[in-house]
Amino acid sequence: MAGNTFGQLFRVTTFGESHGPALGAVVDGVVPGIPLTEKDIQIELDRRRPGQSNVTTPRREDDTVEILSGVFEGKTTGAPIALLIRNRDQKSSDYDALRDIFRPGHADFTYLAKYGIRDHRGGGRASGRETAGRVAAGAVAKKILKTFGIRVYAYTQAIGKVTAQSVDLEVIDKNPVRAPDLKSAELMILEIERVRGAGDSIGGIIEAVVKGCPPGLGDPVFEKLNAIIGHGLLSIGAVRGVEFGAGFAAAQMKGSEHNDNFSVEDKKITSATNNAGGILGGISTGADIVLRVAVKPTSSIASEQKTVTIDQKPTTVTVTGRHDPCLCPRLVVVVEAMLAMSILDALLIQKGLCPNE
Amino acid sequence: MAGNTFGQLFRVTTFGESHGPALGAVVDGVVPGIPLTEKDIQIELDRRRPGQSNVTTPRREDDTVEILSGVFEGKTTGAPIALLIRNRDQKSSDYDALRDIFRPGHADFTYLAKYGIRDHRGGGRASGRETAGRVAAGAVAKKILKTFGIRVYAYTQAIGKVTAQSVDLEVIDKNPVRAPDLKSAELMILEIERVRGAGDSIGGIIEAVVKGCPPGLGDPVFEKLNAIIGHGLLSIGAVRGVEFGAGFAAAQMKGSEHNDNFSVEDKKITSATNNAGGILGGISTGADIVLRVAVKPTSSIASEQKTVTIDQKPTTVTVTGRHDPCLCPRLVVVVEAMLAMSILDALLIQKGLCPNE
Amino acid sequence: MAGNTFGQLFRVTTFGESHGPALGAVVDGVVPGIPLTEKDIQIELDRRRPGQSNVTTPRREDDTVEILSGVFEGKTTGAPIALLIRNRDQKSSDYDALRDIFRPGHADFTYLAKYGIRDHRGGGRASGRETAGRVAAGAVAKKILKTFGIRVYAYTQAIGKVTAQSVDLEVIDKNPVRAPDLKSAELMILEIERVRGAGDSIGGIIEAVVKGCPPGLGDPVFEKLNAIIGHGLLSIGAVRGVEFGAGFAAAQMKGSEHNDNFSVEDKKITSATNNAGGILGGISTGADIVLRVAVKPTSSIASEQKTVTIDQKPTTVTVTGRHDPCLCPRLVVVVEAMLAMSILDALLIQKGLCPNE
Amino acid sequence: MAGNTFGQLFRVTTFGESHGPALGAVVDGVVPGIPLTEKDIQIELDRRRPGQSNVTTPRREDDTVEILSGVFEGKTTGAPIALLIRNRDQKSSDYDALRDIFRPGHADFTYLAKYGIRDHRGGGRASGRETAGRVAAGAVAKKILKTFGIRVYAYTQAIGKVTAQSVDLEVIDKNPVRAPDLKSAELMILEIERVRGAGDSIGGIIEAVVKGCPPGLGDPVFEKLNAIIGHGLLSIGAVRGVEFGAGFAAAQMKGSEHNDNFSVEDKKITSATNNAGGILGGISTGADIVLRVAVKPTSSIASEQKTVTIDQKPTTVTVTGRHDPCLCPRLVVVVEAMLAMSILDALLIQKGLCPNE
Repeated sequence: MAGNTFGQLFRVTTFGESHGPALGAVVDGVVPGIPLTEKDIQIELDRRRPGQSNVTTPRREDDTVEILSGVFEGKTTGAPIALLIRNRDQKSSDYDALRDIFRPGHADFTYLAKYGIRDHRGGGRASGRETAGRVAAGAVAKKILKTFGIRVYAYTQAIGKVTAQSVDLEVIDKNPVRAPDLKSAELMILEIERVRGAGDSIGGIIEAVVKGCPPGLGDPVFEKLNAIIGHGLLSIGAVRGVEFGAGFAAAQMKGSEHNDNFSVEDKKITSATNNAGGILGGISTGADIVLRVAVKPTSSIASEQKTVTIDQKPTTVTVTGRHDPCLCPRLVVVVEAMLAMSILDALLIQKGLCPNE
Repeated sequence: MAGNTFGQLFRVTTFGESHGPALGAVVDGVVPGIPLTEKDIQIELDRRRPGQSNVTTPRREDDTVEILSGVFEGKTTGAPIALLIRNRDQKSSDYDALRDIFRPGHADFTYLAKYGIRDHRGGGRASGRETAGRVAAGAVAKKILKTFGIRVYAYTQAIGKVTAQSVDLEVIDKNPVRAPDLKSAELMILEIERVRGAGDSIGGIIEAVVKGCPPGLGDPVFEKLNAIIGHGLLSIGAVRGVEFGAGFAAAQMKGSEHNDNFSVEDKKITSATNNAGGILGGISTGADIVLRVAVKPTSSIASEQKTVTIDQKPTTVTVTGRHDPCLCPRLVVVVEAMLAMSILDALLIQKGLCPNE
Repeated sequence: MAGNTFGQLFRVTTFGESHGPALGAVVDGVVPGIPLTEKDIQIELDRRRPGQSNVTTPRREDDTVEILSGVFEGKTTGAPIALLIRNRDQKSSDYDALRDIFRPGHADFTYLAKYGIRDHRGGGRASGRETAGRVAAGAVAKKILKTFGIRVYAYTQAIGKVTAQSVDLEVIDKNPVRAPDLKSAELMILEIERVRGAGDSIGGIIEAVVKGCPPGLGDPVFEKLNAIIGHGLLSIGAVRGVEFGAGFAAAQMKGSEHNDNFSVEDKKITSATNNAGGILGGISTGADIVLRVAVKPTSSIASEQKTVTIDQKPTTVTVTGRHDPCLCPRLVVVVEAMLAMSILDALLIQKGLCPNE
Repeated sequence: MAGNTFGQLFRVTTFGESHGPALGAVVDGVVPGIPLTEKDIQIELDRRRPGQSNVTTPRREDDTVEILSGVFEGKTTGAPIALLIRNRDQKSSDYDALRDIFRPGHADFTYLAKYGIRDHRGGGRASGRETAGRVAAGAVAKKILKTFGIRVYAYTQAIGKVTAQSVDLEVIDKNPVRAPDLKSAELMILEIERVRGAGDSIGGIIEAVVKGCPPGLGDPVFEKLNAIIGHGLLSIGAVRGVEFGAGFAAAQMKGSEHNDNFSVEDKKITSATNNAGGILGGISTGADIVLRVAVKPTSSIASEQKTVTIDQKPTTVTVTGRHDPCLCPRLVVVVEAMLAMSILDALLIQKGLCPNE
């Protein structure tokens, strides 16, 4: 309600500001008896970490996680898991000049309008750094989902106008933009370097797939599986849109084109096409869940921009920090985290609501 | 959690199946002292009603609402408002042939997979008729929002490839497709008649605008204003995607293009552009909130489709009922309802969380 | 949040005022496939009904329930069940004299302080009649609990100083005060008649027992089983206290007396004593859950009382309506309803949170 | 839902086990702009700390709090406040002997039944140490309440059969049992020393008072102010019962005795008596809120007790750790914390739901 908790049965609460002492998450509703170590979480944090390649920010953030609770002798106990990530490399003084200025595209203005007070250092709570807590919590979700045979993948489907031409899940972590096809990855890297060279940034599209999701997840009416997934994905700062299956293309399709006809394969009811993106009437069909999110270009750019001060004086701002020219390569990991949380929550709710299934 | 309630402080619970005795909603968290009559609600139900023009289904559903509670001497009391709509014109026997068949594009298969039991008559709980309860509740939300100076509008921005060329909010209810420009409306009507003639259906895009929304609504991290609005809109059966401001177009933009520069007008901080769609960092800026949803083509079509039976036998189905060839004209009203609920809930939460603002 | 919904996975929302058109409840999170008819619910409503004996109010309220949704061909479908009870016998004019007067012991003053507006007719939303919706919803909960082998009982343990001397669950519904021992029942009836004759009312204690509850229900820390049961019971208007197992007597006990020693019986771990009331550390042990609630004397009494008007003028009030001289006999049914809802919710949550147990 | 979060708008999530790396709380829904330092929180933790006198356990726990987020330049920002308390003095090996034994009165058996896995060291998550997180969070709630003129007090009203004879709020923190009267305090100390000498423990009663609470808090039906306060208090491990105002005594009272007559004083509507405990119809009246909780005797006692092992073998157990002979003196601080959270949450909800009051 106050906004820092996601999920109902599987429940993640994050905390922490960009330049405060620490960030983290408390993960509640953890299925007991699941093997879990700090390494499981660190792997995902390292995938999100800045400075991992030269298409991301050169800023260094070590982001080492500590498990504070909820794990005993290497297994989850059902108690809440608190995950702590200390902030290091904090150059708060970098932000002194921005104290009284509203950066375009950032939440500076709206936070002050809302709260009447604002931690201006690096965006405070509105910083992208907040997603480190999500990624840590998402790693727990992924580990649990795996025991149910469910896997979550995301990848950079487009950067600006450069789009992936094919999907090979194996190559995602083998190229710095996390594209699903190595050739397009090279073009994407060139595009990112080009806009960075111009003191600018670029948007993109992340596509995600859930494999192994059983039919029956998601609840009718307001808690449709796509609605709770969409909620989670739209809660990522840079996401401007989300679409499932055929998505916005469905707006130009006819019913006869869009409907997925049912057929039987291996004694299971299925469909050859998947315009529904694996969800019908808000409930998973058992097919792959497929979705895309639109990622806006990074708001922090090196070029000079017009803006105003707190006192309503016109000014200009040049954001000098070290920022990602394109958010997609690192945001892929956050998309996976939110998706894993959503699916796991829906799975546990289904176990509760339909106990005899 | 079980899926039939939306919102936190302003809370709507809907109930009812397509061919059961009644549908309705219980609206909780109603601001006390607001004038409210059945007529306020009936107006919106009449806008959603089938059979209102010849681009919608000729099916007649009277949808007369009765207020059962929460209003005393013409004013809201703060107690929950129960809204009852009796089902009439129920031809359950129309659906006998569909009892054991999974209609493509419908929730028949997933409901059975989830619950192990299914009310097959007209889609049961998964029917579009369920939105009547939402529209009734949304009418209450709209009435309350008006007292805070906030107004919500939606309109058909595209049907198939026919798109509106301009936006005049005054004409929306003056044409049967609820387009914001009368010329495009005519072309849209032609397009709908064309696909209906071919035994088919067509998708479209609905755009919505919130005017008068103060800055500060929406909560950081998981309850961003766009996330809760998106959740609500994606909970509408036919919606396949949602985007805010520049939306998916942002994926191809540069930061220097996408960022809305701040300026001062009438002693208020504002922006000349609105690529953010009135929301920055998940919090309203005070500018118009602008969004679009992708609406899939109606799943029920007159043409024969391949499918399977419950017993996994291949079969064909021709959906003979009376269905809308395009959902947009009536769905506009549902989009407004969900949007009104979301905004009102965020407004009340802001009043609670930041009591001194 | 706005207060009219109880439960997380099994979720009951009630609505309706004493003298409005109708009361009722929407029950969400209903386990699918459970046989349910209006008769199942009517039985419980009849147990709560006024006028059923001469120790209760002679006021007649028929309280006939109609199931509006969620049941198909005699079975629950998983969709929300809306239950409607029309108000009949409404003598609103009885209350005209009370419009501007605050009745002692009633919520007249606090409702007006809270909302700035008040439906004064029969207490409006604060009326005991509101519990009809709870009893209807509780009947659904009881029906589902039965399929899991769980049964809930409540009875009048004391009226004023007259206490039951033994417990025979079979006789509860065979005496008008719903005492668990027929001899004490007679003394209780005499006590009620005595206070009624004096234009007064009397308090009492209701005890409740849950049989067949498996170990493991309830969640650590804030959602302890006793905490959620206590929440539910304290939400009944007339309840002034709740205690579990040894309860307040534990305050005078030593650890060596209070601790229930574990032993083994029939290859199951159990205890010969049950001071814990079937709950340890907030989680059910598998023993009977035992609790008691303190019920205040009816606030509406025939004797003249001093009070003030809305305009702060001193006045007197004599509540002339037809009221129960003691609330216990009918409140027993409400206690059972709240208890059934709490246990069922905890059961479903446990199925969700510990899916492998 | 998973049980480790309390409250709706003001929301506290606790984490941590007795013998894990750390305990703490995340506090969400914090009113922005409130001055807050670690010292504000440390004061309350020191009041709860073991080893503070010779009527409590001699166990030393330093319980130093660190604020990890949500405070900027000495003021709350509206972002969640994470509070960290590192565990020190952990003698896990003390508990090796208890690994396979169910201690009477403890949650050992129920945790294993629920989760199938158990952190046996010092009770793990079920340890009283968990309340350190609550006290830290409660300190934040108290600080915010103070800005609204609301103060929360609790004190030991009885230990065994020794009851306080008068109430002087000034002396509570001036005697080691936290009694409200110094003479009774001495007798209470004697009683505690007596039972401890006998290798036993003793129960007691804590009374609490809220001063300065405005009328109108609490929501009708299921979120009555007493219901949410009761929920919070019953979530404290050792609490076996809770009562408001006249409480269980009301069960023996007549309506004419129990009803608080309204009168006018200083142009405000009030009552000379307060049998309602400051709450009518679940909503605060503006009078002091008065309640009592029954505290069971400490389960860990030095005397030998009969019990069973995990393998259902009979055995005996003598709990050798260092435990409080009576929980009341330290639990007073936890009661205040839960009460502060409940009242603050109700206050914020009222600001949200009735924004025009």
